[in-house]
Amino acid sequence: MSGGKSVIIRLEMQTDRIHFGQVASAVAEAGGDIVAIDVIQTGRDTTIRDLTVMVADDGHTNRIADGLKALSGIRVVNVSDRTFLLHLGGKIEITPKTPIQNRDDLSRVYTPDVARVCMAIREDPDKAFALTVKRNTVAVVSDGTAVLGLGNIGPYAAMPVMEGKAMLFKQFAGVDAFPICLDTQDPEEIIRHVKAIAPAFGGINLEDISSPRCFEIEKRLREELDIPVFHDDQHGTAVVLYAGLINALKVVGKDLGSAKVVVCGVGAAGVACSKILMAAGVGEIIGVDRDGILTADREYAQPMWRWYAEHSNPRRISGGLREALEGADVFIGLSAGGLLKREYVMRMARDPIVFAMANPTPEISPEEAEDIVGVIATGRSDYPNQINNVLCFPGIFRGALDCRASEINEEMKLAAAEAIASVIRDEERNKQYIIPSVFNQEVVKRLRDGVVEAAIRTGVARRIPREYR
Amino acid sequence: MSGGKSVIIRLEMQTDRIHFGQVASAVAEAGGDIVAIDVIQTGRDTTIRDLTVMVADDGHTNRIADGLKALSGIRVVNVSDRTFLLHLGGKIEITPKTPIQNRDDLSRVYTPDVARVCMAIREDPDKAFALTVKRNTVAVVSDGTAVLGLGNIGPYAAMPVMEGKAMLFKQFAGVDAFPICLDTQDPEEIIRHVKAIAPAFGGINLEDISSPRCFEIEKRLREELDIPVFHDDQHGTAVVLYAGLINALKVVGKDLGSAKVVVCGVGAAGVACSKILMAAGVGEIIGVDRDGILTADREYAQPMWRWYAEHSNPRRISGGLREALEGADVFIGLSAGGLLKREYVMRMARDPIVFAMANPTPEISPEEAEDIVGVIATGRSDYPNQINNVLCFPGIFRGALDCRASEINEEMKLAAAEAIASVIRDEERNKQYIIPSVFNQEVVKRLRDGVVEAAIRTGVARRIPREYR
Repeated sequence: MSGGKSVIIRLEMQTDRIHFGQVASAVAEAGGDIVAIDVIQTGRDTTIRDLTVMVADDGHTNRIADGLKALSGIRVVNVSDRTFLLHLGGKIEITPKTPIQNRDDLSRVYTPDVARVCMAIREDPDKAFALTVKRNTVAVVSDGTAVLGLGNIGPYAAMPVMEGKAMLFKQFAGVDAFPICLDTQDPEEIIRHVKAIAPAFGGINLEDISSPRCFEIEKRLREELDIPVFHDDQHGTAVVLYAGLINALKVVGKDLGSAKVVVCGVGAAGVACSKILMAAGVGEIIGVDRDGILTADREYAQPMWRWYAEHSNPRRISGGLREALEGADVFIGLSAGGLLKREYVMRMARDPIVFAMANPTPEISPEEAEDIVGVIATGRSDYPNQINNVLCFPGIFRGALDCRASEINEEMKLAAAEAIASVIRDEERNKQYIIPSVFNQEVVKRLRDGVVEAAIRTGVARRIPREYR
Repeated sequence: MSGGKSVIIRLEMQTDRIHFGQVASAVAEAGGDIVAIDVIQTGRDTTIRDLTVMVADDGHTNRIADGLKALSGIRVVNVSDRTFLLHLGGKIEITPKTPIQNRDDLSRVYTPDVARVCMAIREDPDKAFALTVKRNTVAVVSDGTAVLGLGNIGPYAAMPVMEGKAMLFKQFAGVDAFPICLDTQDPEEIIRHVKAIAPAFGGINLEDISSPRCFEIEKRLREELDIPVFHDDQHGTAVVLYAGLINALKVVGKDLGSAKVVVCGVGAAGVACSKILMAAGVGEIIGVDRDGILTADREYAQPMWRWYAEHSNPRRISGGLREALEGADVFIGLSAGGLLKREYVMRMARDPIVFAMANPTPEISPEEAEDIVGVIATGRSDYPNQINNVLCFPGIFRGALDCRASEINEEMKLAAAEAIASVIRDEERNKQYIIPSVFNQEVVKRLRDGVVEAAIRTGVARRIPREYR
């Protein structure tokens, strides 16, 4: 069955009431294909079996399960597909770097000899960076208020995302990361908790915290901690967006300094994207949200919007997205599916650049805009030019940890974006290829070097890696 | 050099001012034996070399380093012995259980497919135990106020101990454990922080928190969390002590119910040891601290001592350790080196059992008491009968996690102690062998089974492992 996937259906069968032939028939009647049967447990009266079945999609799985539930003498214990099976018991583990095989090993890594290491740190707390996991470990902190596109689902339900992130940190950049999902949504409490757990960590990756709470939380933690604090939903997105924009502008032969950029959706990510472009020296930025173009002529209750209105839209244009896009070079969408009309794109300057990053449905689909844009990028993996945070966070923390940076500043973010953009060589770059794949192994290396150099240059590196001495 | 150890001395040598021959001579003159030379970096003017040198002891290392520092054109960058080298960059790492090799893997463990797993937990929070690391992960929580015998050294310096503990959890019982060293010493704050981070964890191991603060912190967390909270310094010690006592009583042919036990040192561990013995049904317990025997006739400011005085010393004996020990069957020392005089032991009942667990110097040395005791045990690895918490904490959490216990109750601790004691067969047991080695692989297996059974029996198991269904 092409395009199908396998699911595992666990059945408890009453041996005297049902035979396996009936089960096999029910699955076949619903169009399922049994590829394996595993007996998990047999008792006097019941047998538990795992059926691996090829199915076309989730609806198909449900039909098969319903068919089985209609039989008597059978209980469908659970239905797991490969994704659920991958999550059983969690996706990360914590392992010793060296085995403890004998008394001698035990006395070195634990009592009594560990006391000498403790006292060395007691005398010089900076040694925590050398002698503990602080050197290489990042906390992935969430309160579960804005998880993926799912909204406020809480700390328990947020865990699989944070664990996934920890996997990516290790796999792509050798960074140890641990999920800290906080059972509170109060910003002051979150700040207190993160500060309290900071001794074990060399960096804090904030994740999926709703806006505008995330601004205050990140700002305060940056001020009050001496390790990098990085809200990935803001800055990871901004770094990868800017990386893509560097190459997109080269493709259409335009210059950043004179570009007019419209940001649609002034939430956490929209603000961060705007800020990195301001730092990079973009000519003109206009923000558009639900109420239209943000302008210093109007009053905004939210401090971040007030700030934004004062620092953007220099010509004080008013109106909506349509008006904002008049003659614009770049559209950056972090809003909602379908907001960008083809007609609006046609009002933009020649060879318009469109970053339609709303998930899962972009502001405009590549099919609809292809023939009238210079470059189009989305957040999706099934189109070219995917703007994906995975390109940024492992490498930017790799760099920050390697030089014991006290923060991740704007220069380091710009360097990160330039490093990602540089992976694509001049002769490779085209409208379908402005951003490398997340599996491109050059990305982390370049990113790390760029970030370390920027940290040294701006004086936030507390350790100079040997190759830079 | 027998009994020696190796250290690594990192030197920065100015190539035009010093030759390696001078270095080798200086080491040889101080009696060191160079076993390896590694060039780490060479520049135009300087070379960095690592010298591996066999030395007799720390004093010897210092003499060699001083000899090298006396040379000109050389800088001793650092001196690391094997223990310090084992700690470089920390002792644990966080790794993905499955590699992310392609887009398909990425979409399952991270966006977009992870969203289905998040929503399954959102709908049924109990699924966090199945689909996240909560199933197998324990937080090792300390505030650094009472670390080993080092006292209040703070959260940074406490990290190596907590990392060591995490290694032992994994190596001995397959439990994932992560160190949470809190940057606060306020009990209310500690309670709040632990509750906030609890979603990721299936259990909380409190560690090295000073008394009496530890009592309130543990009590409150036990009440307010639905996962096991276990202060290892109290209960780990108590479980292993009781395991040893079970076998010691068998060796001398006495019965727990009629035994008179004196506990010297009524701190966190002393209270916990007393409580487990009360639960086990010991005949008479008398506590002795700095001010002498605790008795209900006197007033105590500390609530725990008040409780203790009311629940022990039924005959209201007064006086000091000497008086308490008159006719006693068991001495349990958790106090300070040398407190137990040979003369006191001679006033105890026939075949006295002495647990002299003060570290690093026991209340009485085995050499001094050997000829007049029935059994003697200490906290040290260089005498027989070591009472070591490592025997308890990995296995007791293994059991608690396997049945998703909501707490570790007194019955589970008693079962843990009985399981540890049972590892020593009747024909093996003697005065030199009342407690198994920490490397005995039977310990965790039996402990786990005993703890699971006790949890099921007492109704705190939220999952019945298959073999018990």
